[in-house]
Amino acid sequence: MTDTNQSLLDALVPEIRRGGIVLAVLAGLKQEEYGYSLKRWLADHGVEIDEGTLYPLLRRLESQGLLASRWALEEQRPRRYYRRNAAGDALLRDLTREWKTFNKNIGGLLS
Amino acid sequence: MTDTNQSLLDALVPEIRRGGIVLAVLAGLKQEEYGYSLKRWLADHGVEIDEGTLYPLLRRLESQGLLASRWALEEQRPRRYYRRNAAGDALLRDLTREWKTFNKNIGGLLS
Repeated sequence: MTDTNQSLLDALVPEIRRGGIVLAVLAGLKQEEYGYSLKRWLADHGVEIDEGTLYPLLRRLESQGLLASRWALEEQRPRRYYRRNAAGDALLRDLTREWKTFNKNIGGLLS
Repeated sequence: MTDTNQSLLDALVPEIRRGGIVLAVLAGLKQEEYGYSLKRWLADHGVEIDEGTLYPLLRRLESQGLLASRWALEEQRPRRYYRRNAAGDALLRDLTREWKTFNKNIGGLLS
């Protein structure tokens, strides 16, 4: 692979990961997690996400009404815990269905 | 589904489609196509894309060095034809591999 391809790949890979990341984060917040524990859980499932992407995404999903959150003081520092609310449950279900259908169609094109 | 969920779904569905659209467009340009013929080919494969998304994407992929293009005069109007070049072939192959691995991991999280 040439250097040019590598830099293009580095530019385009985040684009192909972006939608799946939203689904993965919603899926992981079935139970309460704070940012770093969620990041670890995702990594354990093969989905790497940096904190500069994850934290703004958590705030955005909360502002869209899909997550509940609370602060807790642990190990002498505040942690913000998130979990899906009922709207998040419903959206994850619908979005998963869209994702599966869409990806099946894309997979058909690529084969 | 409530109205709120529908508007959220409308906001988030483009996000989960975005990366796949890039792959689909690259895949479709194995042979030369102009914008509208590519749009029809994608629709025939279950992948809807509006022209306001497709045309800027074609210009962007060309500016990234992945497509060759030429103008042709047909039916008394100019049409811009695009097809993948060798760099586009290589990138599509690498990006497809990334997409498959990533989506397999996301699928695992969602099941």
